[in-house]
Amino acid sequence: MTIAIIGLGLIGGSLALSLRQHGLARRLVGLEANADYGRRALALGLVDEIAPDLPAAVAGADLIVVAVPMDALLTVLPQVLDLLTGRQVVLDVGSTKAQLLAAVATHPRRGRFVAAHPMAGTEFSGPDAAVRGLFEGKNVVLCETEASDADALALVEDLLRALPMRVLRLGAAEHDLHVAYVSHLAHLTSFALALTVLKKERGGEPRIFDLAGGGFASAVRLAKSAPTTWVPIFRQNRDNLLDVLDEHLHQLHTLRALLADEDYEGLTDALHQANEIQKIIP
Amino acid sequence: MTIAIIGLGLIGGSLALSLRQHGLARRLVGLEANADYGRRALALGLVDEIAPDLPAAVAGADLIVVAVPMDALLTVLPQVLDLLTGRQVVLDVGSTKAQLLAAVATHPRRGRFVAAHPMAGTEFSGPDAAVRGLFEGKNVVLCETEASDADALALVEDLLRALPMRVLRLGAAEHDLHVAYVSHLAHLTSFALALTVLKKERGGEPRIFDLAGGGFASAVRLAKSAPTTWVPIFRQNRDNLLDVLDEHLHQLHTLRALLADEDYEGLTDALHQANEIQKIIP
Repeated sequence: MTIAIIGLGLIGGSLALSLRQHGLARRLVGLEANADYGRRALALGLVDEIAPDLPAAVAGADLIVVAVPMDALLTVLPQVLDLLTGRQVVLDVGSTKAQLLAAVATHPRRGRFVAAHPMAGTEFSGPDAAVRGLFEGKNVVLCETEASDADALALVEDLLRALPMRVLRLGAAEHDLHVAYVSHLAHLTSFALALTVLKKERGGEPRIFDLAGGGFASAVRLAKSAPTTWVPIFRQNRDNLLDVLDEHLHQLHTLRALLADEDYEGLTDALHQANEIQKIIP
Repeated sequence: MTIAIIGLGLIGGSLALSLRQHGLARRLVGLEANADYGRRALALGLVDEIAPDLPAAVAGADLIVVAVPMDALLTVLPQVLDLLTGRQVVLDVGSTKAQLLAAVATHPRRGRFVAAHPMAGTEFSGPDAAVRGLFEGKNVVLCETEASDADALALVEDLLRALPMRVLRLGAAEHDLHVAYVSHLAHLTSFALALTVLKKERGGEPRIFDLAGGGFASAVRLAKSAPTTWVPIFRQNRDNLLDVLDEHLHQLHTLRALLADEDYEGLTDALHQANEIQKIIP
């Protein structure tokens, strides 16, 4: 089948590589708002052609994947649905779902759309960040599948399982709360950690990073992520993220109090509790 | 030369592997408070023999490396210095330095001791966590070198450079402040992040971790670290860590306010600033 990918960054580009690798697309058509990115995606062989505009990208595609930042997605997804004819199917790969699903809830072609969030990524962005195998063995969450047509859902599920990904289903509200915990908070704390240490370095301690080891590198990895990707995510998941951030601040204040009070038994207990993450994320 | 390693965990065990790999030790003698760890270190071939006690470990060793947790180090290091005869040299590998150096400042054999902190580690512990090449190409900080005898310092520097490591020198106070920023804070925030998400999961959201990707794994990696290692470090670097944690809390509160106020331009600016970490930690 012919697949159009709107947005050829890390996720759209990596998906193009995976679709080609698994023989799932006869032809890949791309569209990219950034002309340099579009040329680069073509040069990298991510897609077979770059469409001149959205109508051209959608026309003739059996499946249209919308892989643009979350703010653009709120505009682009309804436009794509407006352009659909026949049995075309639309898939998104966005990191938040409630606002997006609300925006297209009453669209006459809502049934052709399947809302998906592949739980995969890196801190890099743009077509050069596309990596082979990014989705292999990862989870992908489908949201509000009852609003998708059965054939559209079946096409998307078969495609995702062929990458191969593990398909889960969650309500949009539940999805957005869960990702606030296991993705958005980790990004926000990593940005804050980088800011804390960079501020100290600007304060005249240029050698501070000579002492940074692999642990620090791991903890600040997500702070390299693109603001153009993450500010729209934080914005659309604002209420959940504020709640989750407050819980995190409460945990930090609790650890701070144990240290300030020199309650080292209590601190030891808390760290042992934190160690339980090892059983879940080995 | 014969090298005794007191404490055969991640650091002591990995050092044993490196010393052997680079032909720096004719004979490696170990001492381990945990008898199971001692037997395991012997079975893994980390050391040639396990000494029955501290005097036996020290006797006959040209270099004694003390690689025990920071709380034990405050007791063990003076004991080792008490046992020294002739030109024996002692090296520690502890993560904080000010309290330790104060504890041995007036010891008659202070000159035989070189205070070192290799900037390398993983989240695992015990002899099974020992990994080949852990120190290769990493920085090692020597503190208060003016209090070490010239021959002791030269022996240690030659040995560390042969691993090969890059040798830096810092004052103890400066060292402890810098590691609070680039190591201890990252550990504390990772523990807090794990606690935040685990608490949510215990609240009845067992599927929350299905949505965790590589970003979350990276951010909570340090939360798997052993409390027996980290509580003594946090304790000995308490004052610095409280200051640095307060700066981090300030950064988190600033990001929270930008989000709460829907100041997305300000949030974008802040994340762009955080992105500068990319230039320093590529």
